Formats: sequence, C-alpha cells, structure tokens
Amino acid sequence: MTELRQNLITRDWVIIATERAKRPDQFTKAEARRTKLPPYQADCPFCLGNEHLTGTSETLRLHDGDGTGWKVRVVGNKYPALAATGERVRCMKGNFRSLSGVGFHEVVIEHPRHNLTTALMKVEDVANILRVYKKRYLDLRKDPRVETIIIFKNHGRGAGTSLEHPHSQIAALPIVPYQWRDRTEEAIRHYDDTGECIFCRTLAEELQAKERIVWETQHFVSFIPYAALSPFHLWIFPRRHASSLDEITEEEITDLAKNLKTVLGKLYFGLHNPDFNYTIRSIPTSEQRTDYFHWYIAIIPRVSLAAGFELGSGMYINTALPEESAAFLRNIKLLR
Amino acid sequence: MTELRQNLITRDWVIIATERAKRPDQFTKAEARRTKLPPYQADCPFCLGNEHLTGTSETLRLHDGDGTGWKVRVVGNKYPALAATGERVRCMKGNFRSLSGVGFHEVVIEHPRHNLTTALMKVEDVANILRVYKKRYLDLRKDPRVETIIIFKNHGRGAGTSLEHPHSQIAALPIVPYQWRDRTEEAIRHYDDTGECIFCRTLAEELQAKERIVWETQHFVSFIPYAALSPFHLWIFPRRHASSLDEITEEEITDLAKNLKTVLGKLYFGLHNPDFNYTIRSIPTSEQRTDYFHWYIAIIPRVSLAAGFELGSGMYINTALPEESAAFLRNIKLLR
Repeated sequence: MTELRQNLITRDWVIIATERAKRPDQFTKAEARRTKLPPYQADCPFCLGNEHLTGTSETLRLHDGDGTGWKVRVVGNKYPALAATGERVRCMKGNFRSLSGVGFHEVVIEHPRHNLTTALMKVEDVANILRVYKKRYLDLRKDPRVETIIIFKNHGRGAGTSLEHPHSQIAALPIVPYQWRDRTEEAIRHYDDTGECIFCRTLAEELQAKERIVWETQHFVSFIPYAALSPFHLWIFPRRHASSLDEITEEEITDLAKNLKTVLGKLYFGLHNPDFNYTIRSIPTSEQRTDYFHWYIAIIPRVSLAAGFELGSGMYINTALPEESAAFLRNIKLLR
Repeated sequence: MTELRQNLITRDWVIIATERAKRPDQFTKAEARRTKLPPYQADCPFCLGNEHLTGTSETLRLHDGDGTGWKVRVVGNKYPALAATGERVRCMKGNFRSLSGVGFHEVVIEHPRHNLTTALMKVEDVANILRVYKKRYLDLRKDPRVETIIIFKNHGRGAGTSLEHPHSQIAALPIVPYQWRDRTEEAIRHYDDTGECIFCRTLAEELQAKERIVWETQHFVSFIPYAALSPFHLWIFPRRHASSLDEITEEEITDLAKNLKTVLGKLYFGLHNPDFNYTIRSIPTSEQRTDYFHWYIAIIPRVSLAAGFELGSGMYINTALPEESAAFLRNIKLLR
C-alpha cells in the first residue's frame, strides 16, 4: 500500500508511491553527461576575457588576488523579468490587479572557467559564490521597493537553462509571493501554538530519526525531508536559527560551501550530473530577525515530471522512498 | 517594463515578461507532430480487441450501439498511486504525519481507436468521455474515505505520459490537498466580503473585457485568465454557478464537448499538437452545493518550463501576453 505523508512546513501532502517506486539508481541519467566542455569558449559572454560580451552592467566583482582577473561577477540579466528603474505602481480595475514590474534580476557568474560546476569547484570557490549572494542580498534589501529576494540556480536544460557557463540568479521582487506569505503564516501559527520554530523542530526530529540525513557539517545539515515532493529533493538547513541568508557568518559560509559542494557532488557522481535547481529562501525583507522563520536551501534534481495530477491537485506523487534515496546518497563516496 | 498581475482566484502573482515575450507562433512545436499513428496497435492494452491486455479490472463500460464493442472504458490504473481496499489510518509520530494510501486511481480509455485525440474526435465522442467522468465522479464520491476527486489528462511525453492511446485519469484521494483547502478558504473569504462567487465575478469581468476570451458556447466560456501562469494556460468556466462536475446536465455535457473540442482543436492546429494537461476541479466531496465555489477545467499546454525562479518563489514568469495568445487562438479557424 502506498503512503501519504504531510510536510508540516509546506503543509503539502505527498503520495509516496511504493507500488511504482524505482530503485535509486534508476534515476541516473541514461547517458552519462559528465562535463566535457572546454575551459574557455570564445563566444561565451560569461568566460574570463569575454566581459565585453556580457551586454549588461556589472553590479559586483570579486577581484582575483592580483587584481587583474575576477573570481565571481554579478551582472544584470540580459532579459530581465524586472526593471531596476521606475516606481512601484499598483493598478486596480475591478478584479484585475497589476503592479509595475520594478525590481532587480541579476546573474551571478560563479567562476571564470566555462567547464566547472559547483560539485567540481574548490570549497573556496563555492564560498565565494555564497559571499556574493550575501553581499547582493544585503545591498538589494536596502531598496524600499523590494519585498522578497530569491536566489536560485538552474543547472541543465531540464532545469530551465540554455547557458552552460556556471551561473545562478538573484531576483528582487516588489511583492511577497502568495506561497511565501502563506508559509510564513503557517510558521507563525506553529510558533503561536508551540513557542517553537517549525524548521528547528523539523531539523531536530530529522536528526533524531537519522535515516533521511545525507550530510552533516558543523553548522549545516542536508537531508531529504520526510514528505519530499519529488525524488532526491533535498533541504539544507542551518543548525542555528536565523531568518535570512544575510545573517550567515564568515565561518558558516565556509562550512556551507563544504556541505553544498558535497551534496551536489553526491548528486553529480551518484546520478550522473542530473539537471537540478536550487533555491535559497529567506524571510521577506520587511522582516528581519524572527523567532518563527528559518532560512534554508532547497535542491530539486529534475528527475521526474509534474503531470496532470500535480497540476490539478497541487500535490505530488513521489516515486522514490526518501529513506532509500538518502541512504543511496550517503553511500556515494567522494574523493577529498 | 514588465507587469505583475495577480490572479484573485489562486492569489498568485505572475510576471508578464514583455521584455522577453515571444510571439504566439514561437510556441508551436518545432517539428509538426500531427497524429500519424495507426488506428490499431497489436500490443496496446487500450485498443479495441485488446481488452485482455489491460491487466486491471474494468469499473465502467459505455457499450457501443450494437452491444459488441465499447465507446469508453474505465479500468484500474496498472500502477495505482492509491489502493482501493483498506482503512483510512492516520499515524502521527512527532511531526511526521502519514495516512494510508487508500483511494482510487482509474484510467479512462477515451476511445477504441489508437490514433485519435480530443481535438480530432466527434463531438459525441467527447460528450461520452464527459458522461463517463460524471458517472465515475458520482460513484466515487459515495465512498466515505474519499475527500477529493481529481480528473486529469496527460497528453504527450512532455505532459507526463508514455501511452499514445487517448486516455485520461481519475484520482480519488483520502485527503483535501493543501492547495485546494487554501483556495476554498480564499473563495469563502471573498464570498463573505462581497456575497458573490469569485469565479462568477471573474467570468463576468472577463466577458466584459472580451480580449482574453477564446471561445464561447451556450453554457461554457473558454478564456486565458488575466494573470495566466504560463503561455496559453486556459480556463473553461461553466456560466451557471455550480460547485462540482456532478451537477452538469445532459444538455451542458454536449455543449461542453463542443467547447472543449474546439479549444483543444485550436491548440492542436495553432501550436502543432503541443503536449498538454487538463484538469477538472470541483469542490471537495464533503461539500456539495455551495455559493462560493465554482467547478472548472484548466488546460495547460506544456510549452514552457518551471525553473528555479518558479520553484523558489511559487510564482511564475509568463513570456506570453494573455491578450495576444487569446487573439491568436480566436483566429485559428477550424473546419466544422
């Protein structure tokens, strides 16, 4: 018999479909697609030396040691979903509600080299990307028009990118998405009922249960949630309660870099470089330190497809057992 | 400048990304994939004459005129997400909540012929499918373990199916999905505030605005909502307020068949047989006639991909203008 599980943070029910469950290695890419890209590509707008091809202005540069090169660059998105200039104007016409699309949409060029990915970078390279996320987060939240900042990465065509060069994106929105509003309300309700953060509680219970933990470092824990929506869906939680990424310390950044690189490495070698997204969720910017919201990273390998059932119900059928997937990833050994 | 729009029914904000907008015909399939399948395939478990290959029991059969064949069959799903036997048992272990996966998961074999699709069927064939939906809906809702019934169709690989034979699915769940619960609450709130159904109000405003209407029949209206989440995302609303599919009359079934066939035909010929899902949403089964909830069909062509932004924010970037997409579909002429 299949089992339904409820995720108390998202309130979503998921069907864990044991009847149609696949073994973990059935999710590996049919065709091994390990990086065979060149370290430099002449027409790539993100490669070192091709900065003139980027086409948008640079908002941040992490200089390389000697000052000539760079480690990470942040530039405007060439096809921005939001415009940096203009007022936030709300328009109501009967039930038709709109808002001018002001905000920021930036691209983080994660590394000068074309053929790298987080799993294969040095820990220090990954730490640099995280430092840049924090810097941009702190800067963008100052804009009074910004209500929500979303950091995300699309890796591979199936995850929505066509650019091979390692990059991620930052979107600063003039609204709070309904889903965020809703989850924040649920977190507040849990806090009011119990006096505890629902995320802290979930982390404590997952650490006690052990079977879904994938990787632990000093300050962060990676695990597949009990009611994971899709196969190998991972969460990375900071152990220390904090509501937004901008509270991360320098020591925690290095620790998170190790954790993120390790977990993405396990996916890379275990599932043969699957397409994936990751996203970093923080509290909406109008709030800062709260007792009820806990920032975190979600990693979503794109190894399954949302079909009519998911679109119609808003809930998911997961064909992988979270406990089995976590054990599979724990057993992937990486060279240090 | 891009524009954010809010859908008052789903409460979702969507970014209408005019900067990266595509013209309607840019969403057509690169390779025209008009049906070139055979009318019968020897190893297809859904073809007429292959009933012995189905492998699961039949729960409904619409007999053909002379009694030897059939028009529509309903059978159990070979890999069911839910099991028909067993008790609904809830288990709580700290924050880990689960429920036994009882319920129903059926397949509607829409037509005896292998190489048809809704767009190419006769109106009467489509009406038969809808009659079967209603019959199964009425039957499944009698089971006290069932709380929600979702009817959906996956057409094409990109929409999550590997079976070519025209079919759709019915899932009867032992819970109310969080998203449904949430939207119902919002609909109630709107009703409490205004005394009107939010769906009726939306339909009235769309009919007045005209520019997003795709097709009108006597009892149903197809339109692309003002804040459509993705390109060519369509809704079909009944004009008459009713909370669930089981209230549809015989006259309305024929009218809906015409509307559904026409709209899917416009997508089929206009976008070259795109992959799509459709879903039918009714009120959870514990309620029946309500003043605040209105059943409807959503059609989602799979012409864009949810990436990290969508997964991280729960909101969407739509690269097509709803008004332009609707005009494009209005202008696709079909032979009668």
